[in-house]
Amino acid sequence: MSAPRVGIVGGGQLARMMQPAAINLGIQLRVLAHSMTESAAQVIPDTVIGSHDDFAALLAFADGCDVITFDHEHVPSEHLIKLQNAGITVRPDPSALNFAQDKLAMRKVLADAGISCPAWQEITMIDQLETFGDQVGWPLILKTARGGYDGKGVWLVSDFAQAQQIFSEITKLGIAVLAEQCVPFVRELAAQVARSPHGQCVAYPIVQSTQTDGICTEVIAPCPGLSPERAAQAQEIAIRIADLLGVTGMLAVELFDTGSQMLVNELAMRPHNSGHWSMDGSVTSQFENHLRAVLDWPLGSPAMTSPVTVMVNLLGQDVDDLQGAFRHVMARDPGIKVHLYGKDVKPGRKIGHVNAVGSNIDDLRQRAQHAADYLTGVINE
Amino acid sequence: MSAPRVGIVGGGQLARMMQPAAINLGIQLRVLAHSMTESAAQVIPDTVIGSHDDFAALLAFADGCDVITFDHEHVPSEHLIKLQNAGITVRPDPSALNFAQDKLAMRKVLADAGISCPAWQEITMIDQLETFGDQVGWPLILKTARGGYDGKGVWLVSDFAQAQQIFSEITKLGIAVLAEQCVPFVRELAAQVARSPHGQCVAYPIVQSTQTDGICTEVIAPCPGLSPERAAQAQEIAIRIADLLGVTGMLAVELFDTGSQMLVNELAMRPHNSGHWSMDGSVTSQFENHLRAVLDWPLGSPAMTSPVTVMVNLLGQDVDDLQGAFRHVMARDPGIKVHLYGKDVKPGRKIGHVNAVGSNIDDLRQRAQHAADYLTGVINE
Repeated sequence: MSAPRVGIVGGGQLARMMQPAAINLGIQLRVLAHSMTESAAQVIPDTVIGSHDDFAALLAFADGCDVITFDHEHVPSEHLIKLQNAGITVRPDPSALNFAQDKLAMRKVLADAGISCPAWQEITMIDQLETFGDQVGWPLILKTARGGYDGKGVWLVSDFAQAQQIFSEITKLGIAVLAEQCVPFVRELAAQVARSPHGQCVAYPIVQSTQTDGICTEVIAPCPGLSPERAAQAQEIAIRIADLLGVTGMLAVELFDTGSQMLVNELAMRPHNSGHWSMDGSVTSQFENHLRAVLDWPLGSPAMTSPVTVMVNLLGQDVDDLQGAFRHVMARDPGIKVHLYGKDVKPGRKIGHVNAVGSNIDDLRQRAQHAADYLTGVINE
Repeated sequence: MSAPRVGIVGGGQLARMMQPAAINLGIQLRVLAHSMTESAAQVIPDTVIGSHDDFAALLAFADGCDVITFDHEHVPSEHLIKLQNAGITVRPDPSALNFAQDKLAMRKVLADAGISCPAWQEITMIDQLETFGDQVGWPLILKTARGGYDGKGVWLVSDFAQAQQIFSEITKLGIAVLAEQCVPFVRELAAQVARSPHGQCVAYPIVQSTQTDGICTEVIAPCPGLSPERAAQAQEIAIRIADLLGVTGMLAVELFDTGSQMLVNELAMRPHNSGHWSMDGSVTSQFENHLRAVLDWPLGSPAMTSPVTVMVNLLGQDVDDLQGAFRHVMARDPGIKVHLYGKDVKPGRKIGHVNAVGSNIDDLRQRAQHAADYLTGVINE
């Protein structure tokens, strides 16, 4: 038996959380990390230190891997294409990944396919911004086409004066900019699918995702009060995008639910924060299905193991004694599932998450939120 | 935050399966293994090569660990006591572990406490064997007091002539011998509890365990057709033994169910094959609770996530293409959970296990057995 080897570019918590699935499946992981103390480097023996910006480092890293995949979307497309040309299997394919890296390219391809998005426009000249703002109304959203995540590279601008200022700062850096309508949504949804090179696709239940200051703070699976018809519609949107773009691995589609419409907000082609609930609440976690998909293995069932799972993120605060808080939380709630990423605590940093699995949604939300608040020092009782 | 470090002596699959739990909980593992290719060494970065028989190696290994625990019971007691005397925290305590290492000591302590066991006797002279055999009837069981596992060190002897021969061979090696009645059981049960140094104890559901040639082949959780009263009685036996012996970590009590009585067969003070079902079928796996217990952390819920889980072991056969067989099994049954240990396939060797989780016991047994048979080449369709 020769176990397959999957190379993951990036040593963050997403790479870390692939390791439990890899251990169970007998898959060997190799990770390209910035340092041996990074989240994934702590738990994956075959860690290579190097930068994802360095093509030579990427090429050396990929040697001996059956497939290369990602913890983030920051690897330059030209490097990925050169890796492919050197005979390396890269999944998702750079041509697909580009649509997760470049929001402008994403908006164009979805528009061409008739998939509903918020009103958007590429902004190359300042007066386009004024016209667009007058059209869709203020405030609106300004985004860099590339490089944003967790609220970075995204601005809610209240008027033309503020928009002008931010626009001129971004364009100084030579980055393309797009403006989008600030959609009056009733809630945000996420649709996740896994898709394999041979074309199999499985869809996870649609979840409700709550963002605070641009960072995901709570996810409820399945989304409460969403009709089966609309849930199926959201799954169909994600499956259609996965097929259209030729995604392999996990695809997350963030959607605005306006009550009447579901509009595509962002795409991610890797395991995603909106799917962390699946580690305890699904037959097959998103991390396991990502590995199965990039290896072109048959996909696992995305079915839920219980009626509801609530996930709450742990965002770093000034906590003196995380270990002490953790013991309190475990003693208070023997059924809560706490996941820590092995990161130093810094204000606002994602240091872990909590899953509560069961059937009573109010009870689960309360338990997950209490554990998260206690672990991050927001409450102390 | 400083993550605790747990040192595990022994690099087999039990140590390997602690790593997913450790990753989730933010616990650092260090493992003492014989080689870098051992099952656990493949997935735990902090691997130290050395022998559990070498006290200097053990002492160096333990330096910097918050607690030392075990993948097996083969570390000499005198080494463990010296480790403790050097200030190392060892869990389970050597004084408890001794009862899992020495079957004669175990029989004596359980007999003193009035806990039901098969009829047994220490055999120091050959004529004791004849008298005991005449008393309890032939065939009977001969066991070495130390060193046995997976059917090794245990003999079913049909008559006095055969018993004489085996007895003389064992005593030549200077190992103590005991004889036990061959109990006419209707089934074998296993009772698992986790117990922490501060005295918290949680009991897993009682399972039915099937042995073939002395090796566990199938486990059904919970044991079908066992009344709640008898299940509670089996849990009480395990809790009582854990308290009596001062066990910390997981304790497995293997029991013979004679229909009217439950008799203690063997003890193991570590995660055990009879608890592998808990990886997919319980809120807290035995591996997570073992780590929580040896760190003196509050224990997790041992509740089942579904009505039934069936575990079937993968015993190595002559399979040409395990990876190909694995893909077939995944495609056929998207809900099956296969766990591989990263071991080379050798006939009869435990190379992994399969869990099927759900509610229909016949369906789950069929699915788990089919997957195991296909993966081990017993069937090819």
